[in-house]
Amino acid sequence: MIRKYRFGTPLPTGAVVRSLPEAQGPVPHFAMTRAEDGRTAFTLALREGEQLFGLGEAVGNLNRRGHRYRSWNMDDFNHTENKENLYCSHNFLLLSGAGRCFGLYMDDPGEVLWDLGFTQKDTLRIVSVNGDFDLYLLEEDTPDALCRAFRGLTGRSYLPPRWAFGYLQSRWGYASETEIEAVAEAHRSRRIPLDGICLDIDYMDHFKDFTWNRERFPDLAGLCARMKADGLRLVPIIDAGIKAEAAFDVFREGEEKGYFCEKADGSTFLAAVWPGLSAFPDFLRPEVRAWFGKKYHRLMAAGIEGFWNDMNEPALFYSPEGLEEAFATVEGLRGEAMEHDASFRLTGAFDGVKNSRADYARFFHRVEGRRVRHDRVHNLYGAAMTAAAADGFRAFDPGKRFLLFSRSGFIGAHRDGGMWMGDNSSWWSHLLLHLKMLPSLNMCGFLYCGADLGGFSGDTTEDLLLRWLQLGVFTPLMRNHSALHTRDQEIYRFSVWEDMRNVLTVRYALLPFLYSEFMQAALTDGMLFRPLAFVWPEDPLARQCEDQLTLGAHCMIAPVYQQNAAGRMVYLPEDMLLVRFRSAEDFDTERLEKGWHWVPLALREFALFIRRGHFIPLGEAAERSAQASLKRMRPLGWLDRETRLDFYEDDGFAVCPRMEEHLRSICVKPEECV
Amino acid sequence: MIRKYRFGTPLPTGAVVRSLPEAQGPVPHFAMTRAEDGRTAFTLALREGEQLFGLGEAVGNLNRRGHRYRSWNMDDFNHTENKENLYCSHNFLLLSGAGRCFGLYMDDPGEVLWDLGFTQKDTLRIVSVNGDFDLYLLEEDTPDALCRAFRGLTGRSYLPPRWAFGYLQSRWGYASETEIEAVAEAHRSRRIPLDGICLDIDYMDHFKDFTWNRERFPDLAGLCARMKADGLRLVPIIDAGIKAEAAFDVFREGEEKGYFCEKADGSTFLAAVWPGLSAFPDFLRPEVRAWFGKKYHRLMAAGIEGFWNDMNEPALFYSPEGLEEAFATVEGLRGEAMEHDASFRLTGAFDGVKNSRADYARFFHRVEGRRVRHDRVHNLYGAAMTAAAADGFRAFDPGKRFLLFSRSGFIGAHRDGGMWMGDNSSWWSHLLLHLKMLPSLNMCGFLYCGADLGGFSGDTTEDLLLRWLQLGVFTPLMRNHSALHTRDQEIYRFSVWEDMRNVLTVRYALLPFLYSEFMQAALTDGMLFRPLAFVWPEDPLARQCEDQLTLGAHCMIAPVYQQNAAGRMVYLPEDMLLVRFRSAEDFDTERLEKGWHWVPLALREFALFIRRGHFIPLGEAAERSAQASLKRMRPLGWLDRETRLDFYEDDGFAVCPRMEEHLRSICVKPEECV
Repeated sequence: MIRKYRFGTPLPTGAVVRSLPEAQGPVPHFAMTRAEDGRTAFTLALREGEQLFGLGEAVGNLNRRGHRYRSWNMDDFNHTENKENLYCSHNFLLLSGAGRCFGLYMDDPGEVLWDLGFTQKDTLRIVSVNGDFDLYLLEEDTPDALCRAFRGLTGRSYLPPRWAFGYLQSRWGYASETEIEAVAEAHRSRRIPLDGICLDIDYMDHFKDFTWNRERFPDLAGLCARMKADGLRLVPIIDAGIKAEAAFDVFREGEEKGYFCEKADGSTFLAAVWPGLSAFPDFLRPEVRAWFGKKYHRLMAAGIEGFWNDMNEPALFYSPEGLEEAFATVEGLRGEAMEHDASFRLTGAFDGVKNSRADYARFFHRVEGRRVRHDRVHNLYGAAMTAAAADGFRAFDPGKRFLLFSRSGFIGAHRDGGMWMGDNSSWWSHLLLHLKMLPSLNMCGFLYCGADLGGFSGDTTEDLLLRWLQLGVFTPLMRNHSALHTRDQEIYRFSVWEDMRNVLTVRYALLPFLYSEFMQAALTDGMLFRPLAFVWPEDPLARQCEDQLTLGAHCMIAPVYQQNAAGRMVYLPEDMLLVRFRSAEDFDTERLEKGWHWVPLALREFALFIRRGHFIPLGEAAERSAQASLKRMRPLGWLDRETRLDFYEDDGFAVCPRMEEHLRSICVKPEECV
Repeated sequence: MIRKYRFGTPLPTGAVVRSLPEAQGPVPHFAMTRAEDGRTAFTLALREGEQLFGLGEAVGNLNRRGHRYRSWNMDDFNHTENKENLYCSHNFLLLSGAGRCFGLYMDDPGEVLWDLGFTQKDTLRIVSVNGDFDLYLLEEDTPDALCRAFRGLTGRSYLPPRWAFGYLQSRWGYASETEIEAVAEAHRSRRIPLDGICLDIDYMDHFKDFTWNRERFPDLAGLCARMKADGLRLVPIIDAGIKAEAAFDVFREGEEKGYFCEKADGSTFLAAVWPGLSAFPDFLRPEVRAWFGKKYHRLMAAGIEGFWNDMNEPALFYSPEGLEEAFATVEGLRGEAMEHDASFRLTGAFDGVKNSRADYARFFHRVEGRRVRHDRVHNLYGAAMTAAAADGFRAFDPGKRFLLFSRSGFIGAHRDGGMWMGDNSSWWSHLLLHLKMLPSLNMCGFLYCGADLGGFSGDTTEDLLLRWLQLGVFTPLMRNHSALHTRDQEIYRFSVWEDMRNVLTVRYALLPFLYSEFMQAALTDGMLFRPLAFVWPEDPLARQCEDQLTLGAHCMIAPVYQQNAAGRMVYLPEDMLLVRFRSAEDFDTERLEKGWHWVPLALREFALFIRRGHFIPLGEAAERSAQASLKRMRPLGWLDRETRLDFYEDDGFAVCPRMEEHLRSICVKPEECV
């Protein structure tokens, strides 16, 4: 059951696709206070053993109890465990255990604070800062049912094309056709599987969206065609800000049409991002989305079939106003005696210009004709840019799926694109964080997602990348991405590249199955990755498990995420078959009974667990997703009787596949299993 | 066996207390290269399964293989897992397993780089940047024997007074007698055990060393006396920099005597720290140490018996020269178009003034009459300040132990003081980091140490502090410390304060035993905390264990370090007795066989494991260390026969106790055990 409560005068967010009547009376479970300025707080006493899940992209545990969060989309690359907010706001929280099970969705485009037992161990407190929002209360018997009901409320998940399940190589720094060809060739010559290469900002002409540098990319269409002939695709980045340069037609057009966000005086708001001073399309308006979306066609005309949207929190390096204030602060401090903490104020002056609250209060959108200050709808910006791109794709070819993933977002964006987990670091703890974010994103509808394998910031190590690839094998978006000035991170740079390649062979051999599981989850409003607590809610050890997940209906994953570890402890809530992979051809299996097991896993080995009574189909190794098939299929499983698997297969592009038309049964007898 | 190799013309570091002849020929195991500028590199191929331990204070695992470190003392509060250097340099590394076991000590006061299989998985590479150093190669059969041999080389560990094993409450912000009395009273009235309160910089008069604010502390001697009458001691902080104020006699004296570090032109080097522009005593000169050490007497005369030395990397907020350069950079950027990364250069300009390499090259020491640029001996500064304080203590009362712990240090400082692990954060990962640093510090001789319980930076949570106290129970320095502007962190601020108090009762009941174990480790050149790999080197699971330690000769600890966890997996390399503590009076025991165990531990419970065939004496709860005794002693253990324990006891102050005079045997029969 879902009830909708309205507070203040909410602005449309686009998150919810069902129209519900407004419920009357107080919100069950919560005590509410509402201040004169609209600030609205909901408080609830948490029970012993109650668990909290959700909030999508965020640091911390699967069970989010004890942490403090803030819905406020933010470009912050330092994902330490105390961070309250990252690039997205996903305001869906689920409470389960101790006799209660309900979910809460704050459909609020502004700042929301979540104190999940941080300040007081047993007190949950949620605050809408602006006080204009719809609150949806969902009640079901199980977390699974709650998540399904929530998807019913917010709409079906985005479907990427099948090739997007191939391995993608990316780096901030790929700056020319020559370089791209060299990266492709380095994979090809070593038979390292690959499906695409992502282009970061370097491909552009002076960081201008929808352009490319004509010297370094003299023939983008030719490059695309050559790559595609080899089964590879290019995936360029698009940033939110448009370079404020009179000679740049996209800027000129936007200015002429009045499509950019404005300051209070009606002039275009400018702030610096990569291209220098830039204007920000008012994506909240449908005509702006349609206009911006069509700009993607410039690249699509050259053969591009996938994009990533970035800097759309929006990230602001500074505004001219903010910079002037910082200069003034610094000048003012120059004469001072500089005792005590003056030097901190000095460094803080320029740190403070980035993504500043003052700047987010300096510009305005138009929403249904009203002028709305940005900070009241801040968290919608990235999702609206995603919607613009999706509009553009539909306009280009309504019958085809395109790849799209975004850094910033809001619930609703899960219908239009996937996401990556932002600018993480080459830290072992971020390998585990990658795992932990998967189910919380899935709960919010984001099924196509993944983190930068090997880590974006900082230098990776060989073993970190290898272990991270072993998790990446199972995540829909499987991308190796790294930052400029860090160590080269392509697989072939490392002494253990053959072990890494072997890991990728497992991805491609499992690809038909992984795609099938993904599509079934998407088309039935389910999750691909679930906490063990959702699947075995009566098992107290499963409920606490923070470093294992179920994958689809049949499997469990438990990656090694500690340096130098030659294995790990794994908890099995029921009997399972361990498959210890070294490559698609080289693996061993072991039947393990319910309970704790030490699972030896050398650096080049990783584990997949298959539930007893289930099997999965392992295909042949392939170097491109298009070649990945079940033509030669080996079932892996521990079966006690003949068993059926629902297998989904389609052309990989159809926009609205009807699941039943693409499902077939695979039947396997116990003795047929490897 | 220890061999000493000399390279270049090393400066004295004070680390080594034994004089060894120089060995000839190449250094065994290593390939060496030496560049014209002196830069000297040692390379070694690591074997499969070989483990690396050591380097004292540093982030990362017990087994440091795969990480990259840098010996360069640095005030950096953001202890993320990628950090190469913290506040100390402890250049002792131990390699064991795969048929080799040896240690290496780089007695080098300058920058040393340690690539422990970071860049190449199987390549160890150590680089002395300056190339003037002694290299000591130690060979023994076991890690234990190596560590003992290393202590033989570098001297006996510092002995704190017994009261330093009591619980200490600290906070940056305690600014008056009234506040101190209130903190003491809040503990007293709730019967929360306590032995002292640390004073951070706030007690000083304008951050001038050896002063106190006479308005806020009108009668420091009276305060000390009142506190001491109740068994409490005050532990004030001393910073490295001396406020450059003509009216400040310590500064004037230092100037007159020429005791401060100088610039190339012979003028006193000044840089800003808390008091504003400050001068830095040239602690590398014995006469300066003697002079500075006696300044502690001003506070000791008021009854102070313990200190902590801070900011002695030395931390430099900025030098006037560095600041001017930053202003010039910023002015230069003001006119620029600010494309691309200009805003990063802007923020970087002022970030770069802090602890800058340029500043460390701006000033000089005098070493044995020679003028030596600071950056060649940078890592000695903190240790030399510690030595100065120790000199002062001996001069004040040569027969008495005083408490001293320092932030920065070098090997050698372990003879003069303890250390805390610097400005950590209220992160769960730092609870585990606290555990991991203990044995690596012990290896380097630092036995009296601990981290800020609850975390220094950021807001703690109730459960984090409670779990952290449960580890702190076992660490010699048990201090709750937090930063200004963070959440109040005294035990009595929290709803679960009674659970926290109960945890402290276990500390005090175990205090006689913990003190006994500490003193025996110190007086026999042993370690208090050891990796399981040292104790059970043949057990592959023990060798990999990264989150458990042995404590002394009889026990093992395995704290819970994950939020919301209601227990944890623990690996027992042999049969052990689990003691599950809730308080000194409330605990249960369970006999557990060798192997893996899920150990349920509710939030208010923590575990101590006692090896089968051993017992430990649990005393009575007490509120002050002086009252902690074994008058009513309960032996805890799983004994198969009558068993003897060597128990050490002294007056808690004697400077050079002879162990055998203070040891007695406690004999216990199996049936006497709880």
